[in-house]
Amino acid sequence: MSDNTAGVVPEVMEALAEAARGSAAPYGWDDYTAQARSAFDELFGQPVETLFCWGGTGGNVVGLATLVSPWHSIITADSAHVIVDECGAPARFTGATLTPVATDDGKLRTQDVAPFLQWSGNEHHPQPKVILVSQATETGLLYSVDELAALCDFAHSHEMVVYVDGARIANAVAALGCTVSELLVDTGVDAMTFGLTKNGAMYGEAVVFIDTALAANAHFVRKQAGQLASKGRYIAAQALALLKDDLWLTYATHSNAMAKRLADGVAGIGHVEMTLAPQVNGLFPRLPRPLITALQEWSLFFDWDEDDDVVRWMTSWETTTTDVDRFIAGLEYSVSRFDSAV
Amino acid sequence: MSDNTAGVVPEVMEALAEAARGSAAPYGWDDYTAQARSAFDELFGQPVETLFCWGGTGGNVVGLATLVSPWHSIITADSAHVIVDECGAPARFTGATLTPVATDDGKLRTQDVAPFLQWSGNEHHPQPKVILVSQATETGLLYSVDELAALCDFAHSHEMVVYVDGARIANAVAALGCTVSELLVDTGVDAMTFGLTKNGAMYGEAVVFIDTALAANAHFVRKQAGQLASKGRYIAAQALALLKDDLWLTYATHSNAMAKRLADGVAGIGHVEMTLAPQVNGLFPRLPRPLITALQEWSLFFDWDEDDDVVRWMTSWETTTTDVDRFIAGLEYSVSRFDSAV
Amino acid sequence: MSDNTAGVVPEVMEALAEAARGSAAPYGWDDYTAQARSAFDELFGQPVETLFCWGGTGGNVVGLATLVSPWHSIITADSAHVIVDECGAPARFTGATLTPVATDDGKLRTQDVAPFLQWSGNEHHPQPKVILVSQATETGLLYSVDELAALCDFAHSHEMVVYVDGARIANAVAALGCTVSELLVDTGVDAMTFGLTKNGAMYGEAVVFIDTALAANAHFVRKQAGQLASKGRYIAAQALALLKDDLWLTYATHSNAMAKRLADGVAGIGHVEMTLAPQVNGLFPRLPRPLITALQEWSLFFDWDEDDDVVRWMTSWETTTTDVDRFIAGLEYSVSRFDSAV
Amino acid sequence: MSDNTAGVVPEVMEALAEAARGSAAPYGWDDYTAQARSAFDELFGQPVETLFCWGGTGGNVVGLATLVSPWHSIITADSAHVIVDECGAPARFTGATLTPVATDDGKLRTQDVAPFLQWSGNEHHPQPKVILVSQATETGLLYSVDELAALCDFAHSHEMVVYVDGARIANAVAALGCTVSELLVDTGVDAMTFGLTKNGAMYGEAVVFIDTALAANAHFVRKQAGQLASKGRYIAAQALALLKDDLWLTYATHSNAMAKRLADGVAGIGHVEMTLAPQVNGLFPRLPRPLITALQEWSLFFDWDEDDDVVRWMTSWETTTTDVDRFIAGLEYSVSRFDSAV
Repeated sequence: MSDNTAGVVPEVMEALAEAARGSAAPYGWDDYTAQARSAFDELFGQPVETLFCWGGTGGNVVGLATLVSPWHSIITADSAHVIVDECGAPARFTGATLTPVATDDGKLRTQDVAPFLQWSGNEHHPQPKVILVSQATETGLLYSVDELAALCDFAHSHEMVVYVDGARIANAVAALGCTVSELLVDTGVDAMTFGLTKNGAMYGEAVVFIDTALAANAHFVRKQAGQLASKGRYIAAQALALLKDDLWLTYATHSNAMAKRLADGVAGIGHVEMTLAPQVNGLFPRLPRPLITALQEWSLFFDWDEDDDVVRWMTSWETTTTDVDRFIAGLEYSVSRFDSAV
Repeated sequence: MSDNTAGVVPEVMEALAEAARGSAAPYGWDDYTAQARSAFDELFGQPVETLFCWGGTGGNVVGLATLVSPWHSIITADSAHVIVDECGAPARFTGATLTPVATDDGKLRTQDVAPFLQWSGNEHHPQPKVILVSQATETGLLYSVDELAALCDFAHSHEMVVYVDGARIANAVAALGCTVSELLVDTGVDAMTFGLTKNGAMYGEAVVFIDTALAANAHFVRKQAGQLASKGRYIAAQALALLKDDLWLTYATHSNAMAKRLADGVAGIGHVEMTLAPQVNGLFPRLPRPLITALQEWSLFFDWDEDDDVVRWMTSWETTTTDVDRFIAGLEYSVSRFDSAV
Repeated sequence: MSDNTAGVVPEVMEALAEAARGSAAPYGWDDYTAQARSAFDELFGQPVETLFCWGGTGGNVVGLATLVSPWHSIITADSAHVIVDECGAPARFTGATLTPVATDDGKLRTQDVAPFLQWSGNEHHPQPKVILVSQATETGLLYSVDELAALCDFAHSHEMVVYVDGARIANAVAALGCTVSELLVDTGVDAMTFGLTKNGAMYGEAVVFIDTALAANAHFVRKQAGQLASKGRYIAAQALALLKDDLWLTYATHSNAMAKRLADGVAGIGHVEMTLAPQVNGLFPRLPRPLITALQEWSLFFDWDEDDDVVRWMTSWETTTTDVDRFIAGLEYSVSRFDSAV
Repeated sequence: MSDNTAGVVPEVMEALAEAARGSAAPYGWDDYTAQARSAFDELFGQPVETLFCWGGTGGNVVGLATLVSPWHSIITADSAHVIVDECGAPARFTGATLTPVATDDGKLRTQDVAPFLQWSGNEHHPQPKVILVSQATETGLLYSVDELAALCDFAHSHEMVVYVDGARIANAVAALGCTVSELLVDTGVDAMTFGLTKNGAMYGEAVVFIDTALAANAHFVRKQAGQLASKGRYIAAQALALLKDDLWLTYATHSNAMAKRLADGVAGIGHVEMTLAPQVNGLFPRLPRPLITALQEWSLFFDWDEDDDVVRWMTSWETTTTDVDRFIAGLEYSVSRFDSAV
């Protein structure tokens, strides 16, 4: 159904149990938080400003509200999480304009942003400030290193910044086979969320300012956004557990591999049309409506686009080869019944 | 250049001079305001709730902020004034989501709104609440009575409301040849701004709640939005002057006629391609760039779409037939020089 | 009742009539606005950044929202207009914290602000940023030049700024007998509203940034706040008329003198206790409730503090010596009847 | 130092470990959440609307933003957490006015609220809507059942509601010896936060609408406030563990008892003046500054009021009698050294 339905990876549970013992300073003044912040510096290959937050929507709010004033606009794909799935949270909290742009594939190009630059400096119009990209996108596509660098170059030459919604950044890094530094520092990304929850944490996300000069007020924003954890050690302990020995990458690689196995397994099955080549841990096949209905009797997944009969199948760190193979077998059975009925 | 560059009609100046004598209760507690509110009831053919505001952006803020809560969305054309020309004021003040929809002609149809209804009731998504139409649109097109009624029926059957940005409602009513009641009450419009400034007032707009039940908190919103005039009699006096003997309609009819005269006059001139059939007081011709440059040496008008070489020519209550004919003559001269140069 | 009940001074009406002729660029791009901005530079004795706005609440919103971010606090007397009389407009628009401080007389001292400085730099608390003083205060008291300078010194030594709500700054300057530059530049005031409406304009206020570096985003804020007049020439023309030959000061001096005449005239009348020595154009006498009721049968004025039987008597540019003397006579008559009844 | 420095009670850790196994529907659509919501119904003795949130500040934002519109005011003690300790989060998110009232002891009485009622219905003023009480207060004092009922009666007779910030409601219920229903339902409280984190949870608070009619939009507000947990089962599991067999009450009772033991233990020690009689789990003693400095060399606690030499000593579910007795012994030693030095 979603990578949010998965449980918590065992290494995180162990870390939480250990952190639960004894007392620690609240609100991020504890040793776990200091260590986890250092671990992010190491991951990015340079000092970054890392703020832990409760969740994904809150993390986006903290990141964006630190970057913009209310007269700015945030330009993004109209399928972005901040447009579709956050009940308008960033718009409400920042007071800024969110400008959704229609794109073929949910990926933003410089030509999507360029038309808004004619508004720069004119008090009658929202002022273009942030290019927001989702890496991976909501439909599981990826920006290449070059694509991301091109957006950053464009942004910086027009007094804008690039913000990455990285709820599934682990899957993206795993799929692209590059380092965090190559993908997010060398390209010029300014700030981002680094997702933990969809990749095996219980809760908690990291907002990372790669351009640390932009983070001057971030702590005030986080507190105002209700995203400062009182017992901060517990998010930090989870982050430490996931970053240790690149565990986050191992789990994301596995999750991607399960999606690949599923895609390969259903490739020869009739009536299943893969609308997008899978790049991370989600598949978006189109199926006949009666087949969707039949499948949903024994498996939970989202009707992604009801009008177009496209559904979403997600894998997670917890998905096993057995899970995948059983789903494929179930699908084959449902298809054969569907064929008989037709 | 714009109907905002015109001066103030003489009847309004006289009304202001008269109102300036003596003292009157502030903040709309005066007799002028009471009379002007009654005049709007009469204009709409039923009791409406009329609140005078300073200006157009402020009026839209008051109207919309009365109708929505921050988790709602306001769906409108991506060319709408509230999207393009108000520096994000309604977004900032309401905290709600403004959802711009791409349309061919700046007019919204039910099929533009329908896809967002799947979000209704689901806490993850902005909740569709307002269909905002500009009558006339930014490019001078009109919704027919039937088109407006269709949007209202659709809205009301989905717990939504229709709000009309009527900055140029006078030109629209004049062009459609219907009554205010036919266009705005019988169709089912819920609330609107009724523009005065672009049609000859010095300042001031009216926010009108046709569904008066929706206006319960409007007075608080107006005060919070900084749109309550302390010496309220002066906006009311202007409104009274314009509504008396349908003066507003006379001026708007004239303004439209001048645009028609201009369109007719340039119809036979080479290199001037009218992109839209003129319906109110604006023309949107496409011309070769050197010709635009030449014209702007002696006439002020907006480069509407620089990339597409489309400009905007506006008429106002103040435009005379002489003005129009001189512009046509000047255009002919510039075209002939352009032809020679090419 | 209020200086808002007065009409418009004749010089302003003449200026409006003249400005109404012909066309002018909208949104402050006109010559009147350029001249009026220069006139303010001259008035302040140095280049300042002047933005014209519609009204007093809107002007405060524009000034304050330019100075603060949502995590800041604005510290002011609990009787201030922004706390009591603006329906929370600055709080809503800025998202910042307004911190009302109880004071004996509505005047703020450094010791009222000092306790909040312990919060500076700590993300758990609103960050002290603006000291807001009303000059004159709501009860007609004045900050001396030294008092204002002391607040500014304090503010600047703690990374704060001083903002003056100058709705009645004309009355204040007239009463103090100093220059604008001495009162508002030499003391170190950072930004302010310079009121026009209560001093004889039809509408319009000026937001003045004396520290022009603080005004970088003010134009965006004004547009977002719905305070940018489309036909901008009309506010500017009023400002020019009032600033010419210090007309604003002449009218304010007259208004103050009428209040003084009233105070002197009622000094010997029984049952009328003046709670504050009058400094500008308002008196705040305490009277027996039956006497208040009797007076309100023939004269409009505010019940300032119902529980304490304190009322407010205001004079304006329009008040004549005859008005004052008739009011005194009426008061004497009412008092004599009250004495007989008791 | 704070009850936030304590770890997590073992029963909660066990519940988390169990909940971590397998998959569950996200966003509160899981069985744990359904059960925990029922457990709150049972605790309150009637159906209530319970929404789980991440933290205390976020919970207050969700509760308050559901109750108010931006033109409303929230009246509370000037020492309240929402005024002092949340960086203005409720003000920013709601856009409403927070009105801090100075009180002797941090407790609000009807006479503190009454003066603001003269503003009701008048568009110039913030509209009084919420009386916010902290139970226990920031200084550990309690409202009796009768005091709370009086505030609720007053509120309801003036179209206001009562909201309880119950970050330490467990300590309050334990100290008062009444039931949740007696304290929070029978008195007429409308909505509240029910704190879990300070009483042994890892994270998570419950926002409870006792008047369920007020909660119609609460789910949208929670999502917009970034307070909807994606893996919702984990907060619910903690709540279930704490509510089972009144574990929450057992831990709060213990925490209060430890504070009482500490108060008794230091009663006879010189230089330690208890400023308030301890009612829950915090003590606020005044000590000579050198003694404070000496104590802080080996024990972490807050300098509550630096100017007045008052500090805060907190106990928690984790505090043992040994901890208390060692602290008392250490205090005795420090006092003896202080006496020698003097």
